[in-house]
Amino acid sequence: MPASSPRQMRLGLFLLSTGHHIAGWRHPGAQADMPTSIRAFAEIARMAEAARFDMLFLADNNCVPQTDWPAVRRTTRANIFEPIALLSALSVVTERIGLVATGSTTYSEPYHIARAFGTLDHISGGRAGWNIVTTSNSNEAWNFGRDSHMAHADRYRRAAEFVEVTKGLWDSFADDALVRDVESGIYFDAGKLRVLDHQGEHFTVRGPLNLARPPQGHPVLVQAGGSEAGRDLAARTAEVIFAVNQALPDAQEFYADIKRRLLAHGRDAEAVKVMPGLFPVVGRTRAEAEDRMAELQRLLHPDVGLSLLSFLTGGFDFSPYDVDGPLPELPDTDVGKARLKVIADLAKRENLSIRQLYERIAVSRGHHMVVGSAAEIADRMQEWFEGGAADGFNVMPPTFPEGFRAFTELVVPELQRRGLFRTEYSGATLREHLGLARPPHAARGHVALPPA
Amino acid sequence: MPASSPRQMRLGLFLLSTGHHIAGWRHPGAQADMPTSIRAFAEIARMAEAARFDMLFLADNNCVPQTDWPAVRRTTRANIFEPIALLSALSVVTERIGLVATGSTTYSEPYHIARAFGTLDHISGGRAGWNIVTTSNSNEAWNFGRDSHMAHADRYRRAAEFVEVTKGLWDSFADDALVRDVESGIYFDAGKLRVLDHQGEHFTVRGPLNLARPPQGHPVLVQAGGSEAGRDLAARTAEVIFAVNQALPDAQEFYADIKRRLLAHGRDAEAVKVMPGLFPVVGRTRAEAEDRMAELQRLLHPDVGLSLLSFLTGGFDFSPYDVDGPLPELPDTDVGKARLKVIADLAKRENLSIRQLYERIAVSRGHHMVVGSAAEIADRMQEWFEGGAADGFNVMPPTFPEGFRAFTELVVPELQRRGLFRTEYSGATLREHLGLARPPHAARGHVALPPA
Repeated sequence: MPASSPRQMRLGLFLLSTGHHIAGWRHPGAQADMPTSIRAFAEIARMAEAARFDMLFLADNNCVPQTDWPAVRRTTRANIFEPIALLSALSVVTERIGLVATGSTTYSEPYHIARAFGTLDHISGGRAGWNIVTTSNSNEAWNFGRDSHMAHADRYRRAAEFVEVTKGLWDSFADDALVRDVESGIYFDAGKLRVLDHQGEHFTVRGPLNLARPPQGHPVLVQAGGSEAGRDLAARTAEVIFAVNQALPDAQEFYADIKRRLLAHGRDAEAVKVMPGLFPVVGRTRAEAEDRMAELQRLLHPDVGLSLLSFLTGGFDFSPYDVDGPLPELPDTDVGKARLKVIADLAKRENLSIRQLYERIAVSRGHHMVVGSAAEIADRMQEWFEGGAADGFNVMPPTFPEGFRAFTELVVPELQRRGLFRTEYSGATLREHLGLARPPHAARGHVALPPA
Repeated sequence: MPASSPRQMRLGLFLLSTGHHIAGWRHPGAQADMPTSIRAFAEIARMAEAARFDMLFLADNNCVPQTDWPAVRRTTRANIFEPIALLSALSVVTERIGLVATGSTTYSEPYHIARAFGTLDHISGGRAGWNIVTTSNSNEAWNFGRDSHMAHADRYRRAAEFVEVTKGLWDSFADDALVRDVESGIYFDAGKLRVLDHQGEHFTVRGPLNLARPPQGHPVLVQAGGSEAGRDLAARTAEVIFAVNQALPDAQEFYADIKRRLLAHGRDAEAVKVMPGLFPVVGRTRAEAEDRMAELQRLLHPDVGLSLLSFLTGGFDFSPYDVDGPLPELPDTDVGKARLKVIADLAKRENLSIRQLYERIAVSRGHHMVVGSAAEIADRMQEWFEGGAADGFNVMPPTFPEGFRAFTELVVPELQRRGLFRTEYSGATLREHLGLARPPHAARGHVALPPA
């Protein structure tokens, strides 16, 4: 690679309102009404764009994920904007930053997802991305007339078919189908419109999608699965992987495994960007960062920590165990297998008690945490980025706006000084920011109007 | 009513891109790329707000409604933005105007609809409305794994339950549930959060909705049904009725019938605003208006007219009939019964041939058309408004931007001079514009956390 264009880090902003620390909304650096304030979201979006981030990233649930009310009422997590509506509004107050929303393949339909993300891509001028999740929360099932969520393997088979149908719908119109010929009165060339006629195991969808092909061809496909099925789906379909790794060796193993799987599927190693979550607590000095962290931890109520730990381990009941004792053996469950392993490994590696574990988890939700000066945080990011563990990071500030402002004012300039991160956008679309190719139009189904 | 505040007309803008005339996109007064241009939509939204309109209104289909490709390729109708994404973007470039989107009760889920419209209401500061449709198009069924659309009666039973569940979800949080007490660490009062636990004929939905109660309590409920089942559902649940009436006596009958039904359901006659569609072709003189109309009609290809007529009559095949002969008897179908009657009545009343009928229909799609000077159009609107036929109108300009600009520059000032329409907004929310009460919070289901 020429010295003039060294490999560049990609940065996403995980836009969990009030910030990633679950008690962070109580901190003076947070804006407690952010979950229902479009002004607050717009301010953060503009701040991320000014720092030249690649994208905003919105997690989502079609439910209140936890229903342990004494704990949940102490968090802002019961209150989240529908992501397409939010990102569509944010697209108007920004110009370049990518906009990635989560959409469930278990509780939605390909036609709805294709329309919503396709429209967001048009409205934003090619900045949309779809974070594909299979959803493993029973509370979500109960909001859609199901008794329980689908089994892990079924969810992933459905997801694979769902993604293929959605891509087929985006390709209904060829890129040059809209001729808009005022003279002849032909608006689109029906020879360049395809009827998908999909009939599969989970879906029967005729099409065509009632929308011109999105500016990016397809919105960028993002995934987070770390299980065997998740890795396989990601290697076959994803373009960005939102990974969860605590330690460098695990991250290196995951990174190498994904790149290997890509080659096995005939894809280029550069076709997928691996971006682990990163929870940074930054100060002008390390001591200041540690003080900030301690301040945040003092705000954490034990109910919240224990409830979150139980939730993240698939509902494991910790009440029979001594909270200052070691973590018991966790049974294999049907939810987030990769996350479960990360949590158990963390407790083992650092010999944490249940209390110490939930204090760590409540902060970063299992993601990689760095507390330190800007140089220390940049060092860690550079180590992972150059050490075969990451193509970039999904940054999870502890609080909005303060925790994020500190990152943009201190860490981003440090990364730029080191030549690791852009100082200006060079492209206009999310694909261009990420260095991903625009997918060519694929001719699926049959043409709407064959030549006469 | 005091003279200082005479009854005011309500105006909605039916935002069908490129305009309501099906060949209007070919006209120099239209912007042919509007279907995929957020800038063009934003310009129209600002124009409507500057004219003090109550609301924008977006029709919708989860399909290309017609698949008669030789005709459809001559229209812009195969290309429409997903309405929540579009309105959410438009909410950021406007401040006061209401934002009404169509959402299907047949091909969506109450939880998705409640989240999307609730979020739009938050983002827009209380300007959202939901146009409830039951969807009667087989092309839509085929995009969602169904062989055919549900029968008329089933659709309406499902719709009634759907609306109740959605309202229940919006009432998950009480208005004052979010206490955000930084000191105690309580974000919301779980004694003011309700779990819906709905179990009905069509839906099982536990709740709660993961969203604070919308600013308007509930987004404004809009409906268009003119059939017996449609009128009954509207009288029970709607707050705005988008009516389709060609002639004053029919409009008066419909208006009186709705107001009667309201009283029978224990609702106030003012609780619902009846707003028929109005297709205005305006000129500085009548002659200029007629010239504009003739210009538009010259752009209409016969394939398009006949195809649209067939579509609007539930797929009736006109090919065996002489296009210059009279309209045959139309069989009762399962789609849009009220619309069918309007079309048949129009042909009979004005003794139209099939060709003359489709020329009329292609223009206004069965809605009330007025071609004339500003004074003539205002006269007709005043006649209906004061004659017990309308509380306002859903305005359907033939083209965007020109056809709408002519309406705002010529007709709106005339209505304002006559004291029939506001010159400034007096309220901030769509409910305030329309004079609709904010629904009180209803305690459905059970409380999340009972008092200790």
